[in-house]
Amino acid sequence: METLTDEILTQTIRVRPQESHKGTYGRVCLIGGNDHFGGAILMATEASVYSGAGLNTTLTDPSNFVSLHSRMPEAMVADFTHQDELTELVSAANTVVVGPGLGTTPQSLSVLQAVFGTVTPKQTLIVDGSAITLLSEKNVKLPQAKLVFTPHQMEWQRLSGIKIADQTDEANEVVRQQLGGIVVLKSHQTKIYTPAGGFLNKAGTPAQATGGMGDTLAGMIGGFTAQFANQTNAVLAAVYAHSAIADELAENQYVVLPTQIIHQLPRYMHEHQS
Amino acid sequence: METLTDEILTQTIRVRPQESHKGTYGRVCLIGGNDHFGGAILMATEASVYSGAGLNTTLTDPSNFVSLHSRMPEAMVADFTHQDELTELVSAANTVVVGPGLGTTPQSLSVLQAVFGTVTPKQTLIVDGSAITLLSEKNVKLPQAKLVFTPHQMEWQRLSGIKIADQTDEANEVVRQQLGGIVVLKSHQTKIYTPAGGFLNKAGTPAQATGGMGDTLAGMIGGFTAQFANQTNAVLAAVYAHSAIADELAENQYVVLPTQIIHQLPRYMHEHQS
Amino acid sequence: METLTDEILTQTIRVRPQESHKGTYGRVCLIGGNDHFGGAILMATEASVYSGAGLNTTLTDPSNFVSLHSRMPEAMVADFTHQDELTELVSAANTVVVGPGLGTTPQSLSVLQAVFGTVTPKQTLIVDGSAITLLSEKNVKLPQAKLVFTPHQMEWQRLSGIKIADQTDEANEVVRQQLGGIVVLKSHQTKIYTPAGGFLNKAGTPAQATGGMGDTLAGMIGGFTAQFANQTNAVLAAVYAHSAIADELAENQYVVLPTQIIHQLPRYMHEHQS
Amino acid sequence: METLTDEILTQTIRVRPQESHKGTYGRVCLIGGNDHFGGAILMATEASVYSGAGLNTTLTDPSNFVSLHSRMPEAMVADFTHQDELTELVSAANTVVVGPGLGTTPQSLSVLQAVFGTVTPKQTLIVDGSAITLLSEKNVKLPQAKLVFTPHQMEWQRLSGIKIADQTDEANEVVRQQLGGIVVLKSHQTKIYTPAGGFLNKAGTPAQATGGMGDTLAGMIGGFTAQFANQTNAVLAAVYAHSAIADELAENQYVVLPTQIIHQLPRYMHEHQS
Repeated sequence: METLTDEILTQTIRVRPQESHKGTYGRVCLIGGNDHFGGAILMATEASVYSGAGLNTTLTDPSNFVSLHSRMPEAMVADFTHQDELTELVSAANTVVVGPGLGTTPQSLSVLQAVFGTVTPKQTLIVDGSAITLLSEKNVKLPQAKLVFTPHQMEWQRLSGIKIADQTDEANEVVRQQLGGIVVLKSHQTKIYTPAGGFLNKAGTPAQATGGMGDTLAGMIGGFTAQFANQTNAVLAAVYAHSAIADELAENQYVVLPTQIIHQLPRYMHEHQS
Repeated sequence: METLTDEILTQTIRVRPQESHKGTYGRVCLIGGNDHFGGAILMATEASVYSGAGLNTTLTDPSNFVSLHSRMPEAMVADFTHQDELTELVSAANTVVVGPGLGTTPQSLSVLQAVFGTVTPKQTLIVDGSAITLLSEKNVKLPQAKLVFTPHQMEWQRLSGIKIADQTDEANEVVRQQLGGIVVLKSHQTKIYTPAGGFLNKAGTPAQATGGMGDTLAGMIGGFTAQFANQTNAVLAAVYAHSAIADELAENQYVVLPTQIIHQLPRYMHEHQS
Repeated sequence: METLTDEILTQTIRVRPQESHKGTYGRVCLIGGNDHFGGAILMATEASVYSGAGLNTTLTDPSNFVSLHSRMPEAMVADFTHQDELTELVSAANTVVVGPGLGTTPQSLSVLQAVFGTVTPKQTLIVDGSAITLLSEKNVKLPQAKLVFTPHQMEWQRLSGIKIADQTDEANEVVRQQLGGIVVLKSHQTKIYTPAGGFLNKAGTPAQATGGMGDTLAGMIGGFTAQFANQTNAVLAAVYAHSAIADELAENQYVVLPTQIIHQLPRYMHEHQS
Repeated sequence: METLTDEILTQTIRVRPQESHKGTYGRVCLIGGNDHFGGAILMATEASVYSGAGLNTTLTDPSNFVSLHSRMPEAMVADFTHQDELTELVSAANTVVVGPGLGTTPQSLSVLQAVFGTVTPKQTLIVDGSAITLLSEKNVKLPQAKLVFTPHQMEWQRLSGIKIADQTDEANEVVRQQLGGIVVLKSHQTKIYTPAGGFLNKAGTPAQATGGMGDTLAGMIGGFTAQFANQTNAVLAAVYAHSAIADELAENQYVVLPTQIIHQLPRYMHEHQS
């Protein structure tokens, strides 16, 4: 297991070329937020926008449109139950994030199936939160795509069948290979299993132990994978930056809120580009 | 009566252990906010989140969902009239805060009864604002729980039957013992009656004399009791911090708004942990 | 005509007594904001809260509840078409502000009549914006109250019948006496006609020439009259502070937004109390 | 082609005369924002308000009213499908901005036709975003007005019929003359074709390559043309300021959000007035 350092940032976050436009920096589609957990998709969206993704569209329950725009006019919105729109918007994205606050109702499952039925191998698909739970419990077929899973340990137990106490690197890697793609296994020291090997994230602070941190990370991975060509590095850099920014804030804060991390992204990424 | 000092903070606010997750820092359920007083439950929720509680769910009138998420995507929401959801969410909480902006209509009473019918002796229950008024006026049976009451002097008169002029420490303590739990009697110098004795809070400023201060304190007590094992100390520390932050702000402000106190919590708690 | 200086501030803004509570600092009821001009009553409300009024309730079109709470959870809300609630809330207030964004429809008139039919001589009533227009155009009977009118020059022409070119101090004072109360005649150099004589406000900047300034001033007069016993001085101090804060901000800004003035109030009032 | 420098700012942004009121600084009407792209018209509106326009009214889908007021109480709102109100409000404006987030549905077309059928030669009309697409694809007749078009290269291809590779200054100027007015052709180095000749904007940064930048620029052009008499200079100054502020922010940020540019406007314009 290789320990991540801020080298992953400079390897990944590139000085932007002068001749570029918003299309150059990718199109992210974020799907989640039912009528109870709307805040989750708001934070994921904000994280993607502040990461620098070129265009961001949020597919969510319509009850979340106003709060999303109140916080973040930079994002576009659509109703995640409108299958035609979902198909069109998901198809147009480079990166798709599904799961934050999606819930586990039949409606949630229906949305997830619509997303899985639309993405293609060229697209990066981040499977987070409720989407992992649904995947574990329901008969949902994973699509061919550049997959990134972001479970915490209990979600990983459900998805992999490996109990938390038995989640060794070897066991985890076996299931990762079965699933394909990258697994970000979140704990107080997050591990990232990738085709290029395993990575350990020693950054991070217990000040981060509050609701919404995972949603924020999912959105950041969305924003990073949309912009940076090397998808593995993009995931690693997002994981590291998320924790490292929290470490900075925790020098002066007892608790670090997800939205506070988000607001530091433009400055932090500026300082670590190359 | 012992006078509170900032020692109560360092005794209570613990440096967080490295190996921890959001579940370590408690689950708070906040219930209140009808269609007129929605701001009260928003402030209580924000206070709990900024105090560092691990997970926060707000049960309120659905008309408050959008304003809550616009300000605070970190919190989850549910309709306080949906009895099944209320039962499930209240049961899952460590700390329950009921009352801020709840109102005194039949619907308010029905919500309060549902909460009281659900909490168990293992849970901390903060009874604030309208919940105290309802408790005083209606035939509501208090549940077995770790009770914290947060009346101002007029609410205490209604609840205890002791007129403001007659609210001596002795008289108050008698009623506290009948009620069980802790009584936070708010005035320009708040007194806290506990099984471990009485405490006087000399911190605080008239700049705080504005609507929403009590709601904010109730939310802070929610956040502190969810995180810190010693429930009496958690209440005392929340009361003291609420006033001491206001004192800091009042050095430069004629009036201190509740939300301004809330935003100082992460920094202030960082400076007073041990 | 006496020219206002910052002496009016120190004469008016008193160091708050230690033994006090939110009731000490008054109860303001603000009425306005139809479905087009909701922002006006939001700004008036924010100005009253940041001025330090103890309790603030906003009676407005229900479509404005969510945006009000998103910005300002410190205020309570009610539907201005619910006559019973309006009567109860207006009756309970020390100061009533009516007009910001009220509009001039039959519904607006009906709300205004309900307010005028409720206030009593002990209350201060600030008549602003649409309320002045309605008063000029419709057969509305002014109530007995401590009246404050806040017209700009065109509104004053409509209300007084004096054309802008003919608005001399003498002519204005004659109509003021007929109306009773105080007239704040807003222009690039606002004049205030009072039973204690006329006052000229030389503070202020063309950077303030933007929509919402008048709504903000009305809310500040609401907050000041609710807190400070001398009602004439409270009006004068609010007018002066509104312009003087704008002058400070205009040292670095081409345009000064109303909400920026509002956010300076707690600091500015702190610096000018005595 | 003349390269823009900050001289265009001091030539355009005038120290405000003491004797002035909000009417002196123009009345802007902004039309756009359907139920998917509401954020676009929010950003355009905020840009116009922060630029210093005296009065701002936003005609949009009613689902955007609350988020607009939550962010910006300074603006007034109306439903863009209410033809009578649209006619009245557009007629009263000095500058009309149409297109940000308007969409391309039959409803969008109907709104656009209503706007085009109302504006008169004395008014400045900024045609942006979806309005350019509709103009390119539908049989819509341009009105007589002081026209400003703000296409990016692909929109210009659709409107002018000139493929991106063939968009030479000469070819562009020919179509500009056919259209009348000013063309702001947005790319990483925006060119502005005007009756007074062509201008090149070398300011700007790839950190700006994110959704909402164009909407923000359209709103700024709205605010500048409403205030400053020379309409060509107003357009040039808005284009230059938009990029130059981004350049400042990009010294410390990897990505610059549209709303961050907006918030710098009052300070930046103050520093560049004469």
